[in-house]
Amino acid sequence: MSFIDSKAYKKLSKMAEKPVDLSKEGELTPDRIHHMKGQALGMKLFYGTERVDEKVMEELYALASEMKVWDKMDAMQSGEVINKIEGQESENRMVLHTAMRDFFEHKNEAKPAAEAAKLAYAEVEKLRKFVADCDKQGRFKEVVQIGIGGSDLGPKAIYLSLEAFAHGNRRVHFLSNVDPDDAAHILQDIDLAHTLVVVVSKSGSTLETLTNEQFFRSKFEEAGLNPNEHIASVTGKGSPMDDPSKYLASFYMWDYVGGRYSVTSMVGCVTLAMSLGMDHVMEFLKGASHMDKIALEKDFHVNLPLLSALLGVWNRNFLKLPTHAVIPYSNAMLRFPAHLQQCDMESNGKRIDKMGRAVEHDTGPIIWGEPGTNGQHSFYQLIHQGTTTVPVEFIGFRENQYGVDINVKGTFSQEKLLSNLFAQSIGLATGKHSDNPNKEFTGNRPNRLLLAEKCDPYTVGKILSYFENKVAFQGFIWGINSFDQEGVQLGKVLANQIISLFDKKRKGEAIEEDDFALGQAYLDELDDPALHGEDMGSMDAAGNW
Amino acid sequence: MSFIDSKAYKKLSKMAEKPVDLSKEGELTPDRIHHMKGQALGMKLFYGTERVDEKVMEELYALASEMKVWDKMDAMQSGEVINKIEGQESENRMVLHTAMRDFFEHKNEAKPAAEAAKLAYAEVEKLRKFVADCDKQGRFKEVVQIGIGGSDLGPKAIYLSLEAFAHGNRRVHFLSNVDPDDAAHILQDIDLAHTLVVVVSKSGSTLETLTNEQFFRSKFEEAGLNPNEHIASVTGKGSPMDDPSKYLASFYMWDYVGGRYSVTSMVGCVTLAMSLGMDHVMEFLKGASHMDKIALEKDFHVNLPLLSALLGVWNRNFLKLPTHAVIPYSNAMLRFPAHLQQCDMESNGKRIDKMGRAVEHDTGPIIWGEPGTNGQHSFYQLIHQGTTTVPVEFIGFRENQYGVDINVKGTFSQEKLLSNLFAQSIGLATGKHSDNPNKEFTGNRPNRLLLAEKCDPYTVGKILSYFENKVAFQGFIWGINSFDQEGVQLGKVLANQIISLFDKKRKGEAIEEDDFALGQAYLDELDDPALHGEDMGSMDAAGNW
Repeated sequence: MSFIDSKAYKKLSKMAEKPVDLSKEGELTPDRIHHMKGQALGMKLFYGTERVDEKVMEELYALASEMKVWDKMDAMQSGEVINKIEGQESENRMVLHTAMRDFFEHKNEAKPAAEAAKLAYAEVEKLRKFVADCDKQGRFKEVVQIGIGGSDLGPKAIYLSLEAFAHGNRRVHFLSNVDPDDAAHILQDIDLAHTLVVVVSKSGSTLETLTNEQFFRSKFEEAGLNPNEHIASVTGKGSPMDDPSKYLASFYMWDYVGGRYSVTSMVGCVTLAMSLGMDHVMEFLKGASHMDKIALEKDFHVNLPLLSALLGVWNRNFLKLPTHAVIPYSNAMLRFPAHLQQCDMESNGKRIDKMGRAVEHDTGPIIWGEPGTNGQHSFYQLIHQGTTTVPVEFIGFRENQYGVDINVKGTFSQEKLLSNLFAQSIGLATGKHSDNPNKEFTGNRPNRLLLAEKCDPYTVGKILSYFENKVAFQGFIWGINSFDQEGVQLGKVLANQIISLFDKKRKGEAIEEDDFALGQAYLDELDDPALHGEDMGSMDAAGNW
Repeated sequence: MSFIDSKAYKKLSKMAEKPVDLSKEGELTPDRIHHMKGQALGMKLFYGTERVDEKVMEELYALASEMKVWDKMDAMQSGEVINKIEGQESENRMVLHTAMRDFFEHKNEAKPAAEAAKLAYAEVEKLRKFVADCDKQGRFKEVVQIGIGGSDLGPKAIYLSLEAFAHGNRRVHFLSNVDPDDAAHILQDIDLAHTLVVVVSKSGSTLETLTNEQFFRSKFEEAGLNPNEHIASVTGKGSPMDDPSKYLASFYMWDYVGGRYSVTSMVGCVTLAMSLGMDHVMEFLKGASHMDKIALEKDFHVNLPLLSALLGVWNRNFLKLPTHAVIPYSNAMLRFPAHLQQCDMESNGKRIDKMGRAVEHDTGPIIWGEPGTNGQHSFYQLIHQGTTTVPVEFIGFRENQYGVDINVKGTFSQEKLLSNLFAQSIGLATGKHSDNPNKEFTGNRPNRLLLAEKCDPYTVGKILSYFENKVAFQGFIWGINSFDQEGVQLGKVLANQIISLFDKKRKGEAIEEDDFALGQAYLDELDDPALHGEDMGSMDAAGNW
């Protein structure tokens, strides 16, 4: 059964011709806010401000049933080989990031999942000992994580979200780009003698990561230090980076955990444990695991990831909205949208279904966002009055992280923050009439609100898993493979061809006819002295143009 | 003449039915790359990878002529009152951010512009003396800028872009949100006795900023320090923050400089000068001013902001693409896209034209982006293979900032970085065929590439002004007012109503019938003990659902 051939698709298409108008007087009521919500694990997802009614929700649920999303979620968490395209050469792998944290209640008992969880737990124990040894020796005051893509975005987003819970004995830095300035900037600021570098690469051969590792190795040597005593690796067993002679320690990752889903594996946990401590890491993993269990629930009033996925499909495929903004009202979650960009867009930015056919419907939306109150003074203008409707997924917390607050004019900052959050959710939906057309708010702009108690390790684990499972559900509904990323390959291939051109140029070798001429065109442009920047364009000396 | 009534609009609409197909064999050639570019001030803008040909460019130029964009740019820079809506109550202001840096070649001689530049230069001189005094006294080792929206995003983006040029004697922090954790996090890490706080608010009454200022004042007092000796203000003359008894110094800003265009005024320059030194700040201002002059050029092969604006209009209104990604291949420019989100989306996310009529065409796109090589391992999947085409504006630099680099396997990191940049630009355009549908790249995805020598103060000034003037040109073409922001008002009004509800609740006052019932609904939800987070949803103890 394909998405657009489903019965529900046709019914929903019909319903989408005249969806709820949230700006209509009396449509959004307190009762609607109280009634239209999901709830699980101490979190609530309010969707009274989406353009849905009970009938649409029923039909979205019917769609989920037709697309067998629970079976697929169960298959994923149980370790079936779901990362594949039928009839084509493809990765043919299990997808078991959920096993990386399945150490708590209601463990999955399917053999591949249980084995993966057992292996993962052995790494957790290894990490516990490693961190305890480091703490005892007091050797490391700085941790530099070198990795790219999922080995950077997720760990960084989670670290920043939880920095308030760090024990404060170590500073953390992330290095990802092959941008030499990025490395130089970190090196300026740290004491190499007390630095642990954590290098992350599944294959042990990621160009950017190896380059940056090499860079740090040379700096350790220049400082008279033995790099092998300062660098730990997170890599696949048997990779070139799984080498006790070159690394202080090696932690393992597996091919059934994709980069963008790897933050609860050692990819994220080594650095997180060095800064937050093992207890906080275990709380974080427990939150993620609990939400994985919730993702198996039938009722979408409990299964929050499914609820969000269905609302997203409604907005994307039926209301035809091309983007999706994720806006946390917490500055600590500053980089969470960047992580979601990878998790969501790399998973569901696909044009081929699992049968290898071009899809005839839209797949993953463009994900973007920034923390809330700053955004309010920025791009909210477009969200309220632009010509393209932007569905928003707000995230808010009842309490703040540090427990430090100030009462100005009768209310605390956290209350002001929440007031802004609630106001935006309501205002986008209802709009407001004005006789001045420039002050008119047409409203009817859909949004939902995920509310939790506090941005702490347990909750951040839940939120991470909420989004991971939301993405998986949308992939199941669209019938695509959310777990490969062939779309990032072409750039790599062409980049290597251009790197060869730079190499030839340095060596003074001639460019041959079958070299990459388009790449060479840009190289030639680099040599243009006009790229020196002190002239004033076509202006003449008298200031005439 | 409105945009859609223009002759060019009709012709371009026709041309857009069959635009250039970049994926066609032989369409993208080295010659096309070399030929289709603009060039000024040592920067090049390559657009051979956009879906345009010479005829489209000619017609876009005709559109610019019909919409009188040069007259409008000249009017803006000369201080005409262009921030207004005809026949409606509106701000009725000049728009003179270009005067904040008009201290160099070819000064604008119109009276309002010259007067504004004179006032601005007086502030620059005041700042020069202030920084020299601070340097001599050695009092300050930390600078905390408190501001929100344009008083935060722009200054932070520029500071990070140029941090490599800081003299290193002072650390810089930015505080924007009414998120109490944000302030607490900064306070954890600084020595208040050596801290200068720069508070920025034009009106002197911005809620978030006043709250954060108050927070810092109380912390200075707790530490036995006199806050008035540690806080400088940037504000409008005569505002509550223009008070020598309460501030170490006050720098002025004016109502003809909008927040999102204010980074070259004292809003950005005070903190920038404290960390980068005055010479670097003057280079930065010179770059911005030089590009303002380029924005007056007729020829779009020289007028880079206009060239980019026209290509953007082609993508948005004729190819109907809803978003625009800005992707710098420089980690230092990490937060530049967030600044552009404000600059562009707050300016052009409008649904009313300057005559007060609802527009019948799309206006500003959704702006998003992250630095390049990390993005390649992330959302590029969707950019290459997703169902929604994303036009990309790449930014690259021939040289790196720190002059530190490493040669791995024959090439330097900067060369690898550039190789990736060129590869993406080419690959998005050409695509690549494969018999495996999942490895097929359909290509034909438009992008352009702004290339400069080095991400230094002069160049960052040019890039900032390039985007500011691009945004202005698009507003001129669409016939909208890019300089007000009525769309951010509703949220403020509703937030204040909810803040009152929190206040009443604390005081135990009764909620009245005409209180904001929708806001109260969310407040009631906050009191639900279910928001405590340790239960497991509907799972029973045996793990059955």
